[in-house]
Amino acid sequence: MDRRGFNRRVLLGGAAVATSLSLSSEATGAAEAPARTAPAGGAVRHLKLYAEKLADGQLGYGFEKGRASIPGPLIELNEGDTLHIEFENTTDVAASLHVHGLDYEITSDGTRLSRSHVEPGATRTYTWRTHAPGRRTDGTWRAGSAGYWHYHDHVVGTDHGTGGVRRGLYGPVIVRRRGDVLPDRTHTIVFNDLLINNRPPHTGPDFEATVGDRVEFVMITHGEYYHTFHLHGHRWADNRTGTLTGPEDPSQVIDNKIVGPADSFGFQVIAGEGVGAGAWMYHCHVQSHSDMGMAGLFLVKKADGTIPGYEPHAPHEPQGADGTGTAGGAHAGAGEAGGAHGAHQH
Amino acid sequence: MDRRGFNRRVLLGGAAVATSLSLSSEATGAAEAPARTAPAGGAVRHLKLYAEKLADGQLGYGFEKGRASIPGPLIELNEGDTLHIEFENTTDVAASLHVHGLDYEITSDGTRLSRSHVEPGATRTYTWRTHAPGRRTDGTWRAGSAGYWHYHDHVVGTDHGTGGVRRGLYGPVIVRRRGDVLPDRTHTIVFNDLLINNRPPHTGPDFEATVGDRVEFVMITHGEYYHTFHLHGHRWADNRTGTLTGPEDPSQVIDNKIVGPADSFGFQVIAGEGVGAGAWMYHCHVQSHSDMGMAGLFLVKKADGTIPGYEPHAPHEPQGADGTGTAGGAHAGAGEAGGAHGAHQH
Amino acid sequence: MDRRGFNRRVLLGGAAVATSLSLSSEATGAAEAPARTAPAGGAVRHLKLYAEKLADGQLGYGFEKGRASIPGPLIELNEGDTLHIEFENTTDVAASLHVHGLDYEITSDGTRLSRSHVEPGATRTYTWRTHAPGRRTDGTWRAGSAGYWHYHDHVVGTDHGTGGVRRGLYGPVIVRRRGDVLPDRTHTIVFNDLLINNRPPHTGPDFEATVGDRVEFVMITHGEYYHTFHLHGHRWADNRTGTLTGPEDPSQVIDNKIVGPADSFGFQVIAGEGVGAGAWMYHCHVQSHSDMGMAGLFLVKKADGTIPGYEPHAPHEPQGADGTGTAGGAHAGAGEAGGAHGAHQH
Repeated sequence: MDRRGFNRRVLLGGAAVATSLSLSSEATGAAEAPARTAPAGGAVRHLKLYAEKLADGQLGYGFEKGRASIPGPLIELNEGDTLHIEFENTTDVAASLHVHGLDYEITSDGTRLSRSHVEPGATRTYTWRTHAPGRRTDGTWRAGSAGYWHYHDHVVGTDHGTGGVRRGLYGPVIVRRRGDVLPDRTHTIVFNDLLINNRPPHTGPDFEATVGDRVEFVMITHGEYYHTFHLHGHRWADNRTGTLTGPEDPSQVIDNKIVGPADSFGFQVIAGEGVGAGAWMYHCHVQSHSDMGMAGLFLVKKADGTIPGYEPHAPHEPQGADGTGTAGGAHAGAGEAGGAHGAHQH
Repeated sequence: MDRRGFNRRVLLGGAAVATSLSLSSEATGAAEAPARTAPAGGAVRHLKLYAEKLADGQLGYGFEKGRASIPGPLIELNEGDTLHIEFENTTDVAASLHVHGLDYEITSDGTRLSRSHVEPGATRTYTWRTHAPGRRTDGTWRAGSAGYWHYHDHVVGTDHGTGGVRRGLYGPVIVRRRGDVLPDRTHTIVFNDLLINNRPPHTGPDFEATVGDRVEFVMITHGEYYHTFHLHGHRWADNRTGTLTGPEDPSQVIDNKIVGPADSFGFQVIAGEGVGAGAWMYHCHVQSHSDMGMAGLFLVKKADGTIPGYEPHAPHEPQGADGTGTAGGAHAGAGEAGGAHGAHQH
Repeated sequence: MDRRGFNRRVLLGGAAVATSLSLSSEATGAAEAPARTAPAGGAVRHLKLYAEKLADGQLGYGFEKGRASIPGPLIELNEGDTLHIEFENTTDVAASLHVHGLDYEITSDGTRLSRSHVEPGATRTYTWRTHAPGRRTDGTWRAGSAGYWHYHDHVVGTDHGTGGVRRGLYGPVIVRRRGDVLPDRTHTIVFNDLLINNRPPHTGPDFEATVGDRVEFVMITHGEYYHTFHLHGHRWADNRTGTLTGPEDPSQVIDNKIVGPADSFGFQVIAGEGVGAGAWMYHCHVQSHSDMGMAGLFLVKKADGTIPGYEPHAPHEPQGADGTGTAGGAHAGAGEAGGAHGAHQH
């Protein structure tokens, strides 16, 4: 899992090594290889996705039967990719798949209005497309699909999926642009009503890393309330990638951001950069929300595996470095051809 | 209304055809004329605006007596324009006109504190100025007035116009910069407490377009609650124009945005671009708000006028392609000299 | 206090005069000297900070014993500076100092979890570091520390400092980048629950300036509620500095911004620019919040000291041009060596 060593993502995704990033001696730290970056897209991929009832009555999406998780598995694409998702609804209520940010015809909208929902036991193929930025024939600039997006149910409970979202039917989507820097791993944090990733209050999730890891967070909000997402000891830029494009980028650098239902953003941090190892809190900064348990830990270890001043205790159940869900997701990307990333974090 | 054919706005507004936008073959679609862009400002305009009581007890602004609407009519300016508004209060309570974003002296503030409100039956001239960006004599950069702004009452009910805003006294203002791309039409969406444009819940408004139309939305929030504005199948950039300036623009592209009272933003989409025709929902993504009816449709038709999979039904009353108000606004810009845009959508 | 005359900040801070900003005749106004800008950082500073109980039972931070204020004193740094703060807790409850945006090791986190809180009567040194932007050895760009940040208690009442923040333990931090334009003065506005700077409703604070002054506002939110900050007659850019970097900066210019707990931003305005003198309101634009008194005045005077149409009245108690706190803060920066700015507004 060390980014300087063997890396599955490279093998699967065909990630190119950046050659256009000039190196300098301005930054401190040991000399290391250029950051890996995303390749051009253009692949046509097929994925199977299940909506399932979990043991505790919640609902989840998963790539394999019996492996649904909350949040659902990460779906990662490169601009230009097309994804056909064969969605099977194994629950006892009509459900659907609605995605933010990507291109989809009205038949893949995932709403009752467009009759693109799926009855219990039925299957439907949703097609998501993505595109690179470019100039239209009228001379104007068309934005690309790159972004930190998400998918969710739009049908369970109400015509807006209020019940489905509440019970766990949501997950992250990342669309990368050619040249976007790739992380060592990705974690998803969903503020859903007053819970994080539908977990009991005061139980994280926690995320582990080692100082120097490039860790990516996808932050999604759902439900009824507004929140402010805060991370201790680390910051990000309030723009598309969470990273400044360079000295001319005017974006504000922040460590706290107001969000509301269906907002999503993402960013990468170098774990412990300039601050060292530690049990760094992240939490909703609405005071009553954090007091009620909307908090977790970013556990940044020294190279020797220790975390100064931190003693793991019962209420916080750390997540493995490779996963964020309450149940392990399947590795759906493993069998796929190069040119497409693996389909979830783990 | 086809942007490639006759266009009233060009005749009225003297909009220049872009010559600086280079064309390329990167984008798909039929070859077409360069996008029309806004001309330089500098005009001095005069407008008459009425505050009126509507039949249902709500209040509205309008350019002509008996034609008030909610939202009030769109006021469109180019940077450098000055607008003198002769405001007549025909209601039975003191009212005013307060604008966001533009330059106005304290005598045009529209507050009781500055004694710039208007008693019932009285008239007052408010002057709004706008300016192009430029460098100050101290070397710093001064931003221009361009933006998606709005006006509202600041007096009815309370010193902050809580009653006036609740009853409908608000409307959109767009200030364009020379070179800004002009839309085929503009629609205004105001999330005011739990209503959209003060309409009954579950009744839209809906907006019609044909695939390929360049449609502009001005999104304004008022009242008491925060919301998240979401549009299906279309996205925009979270910056001044809603469109990326080009490949270097770091702004996040979004389809969901948290907003609070008096926030405003705008953007243009190419209807159905990359996704085709459809009855695309827009709604507040706070789950209880959408469930209570804060939703409408962006009805994108094929060239033959059909919308795949959509059957109009009673609760949604589609708006004409040229209007968003609950009552038609007058065409106040029609008699004006070139160099200034028409003053409202209709 | 005139920025064209004697200026203490220059003497203390060693602020460089901008030489890279080109002048032009585009802007109106009398010819004047180039704007002063921030120097490079790199200083190591030491500061004493006290947490104190105020006469009314609230809590405040202060640079000298008996001089605590709400908000706490402004701490101003240049990228590259290091600040060692000897924090003495003179209150009768455990308290701490947690900062946003800056670099600090886990031992300076100011949380109970990291055991970096301070018992009553005890002292602890917190170290904050800042860094300039630069390129990492992997070729990626690392953002600098510059920003409008803030510090607050993280311990009183709950593990998230809900009681400490509510009672007044918060204050502003500004980290400047070399070349950032310096203001004539800085004011801090904190929306804390339904109060501004913990003052009684309907009592401001008000801030005085003279037309042409370059006035900086730091806006921080705390507590439980979301708000929208609105300023009459003046605008800012929604980016790092609040000022556009130039004609290519795509940031939206706004005069209203949704914020939630622990969000912070800042901006500079030229008082009365394009609009003249006046008693310009600023307020939360959530209608019930402004009606309940979340409002103050930006009192922009003519050169002769008068404000057209404004009669000071009892409920509003104007603040001096040099202060924003409820109690005067000490001038901790006065005895410091050049290369570091004074440590608070006054």
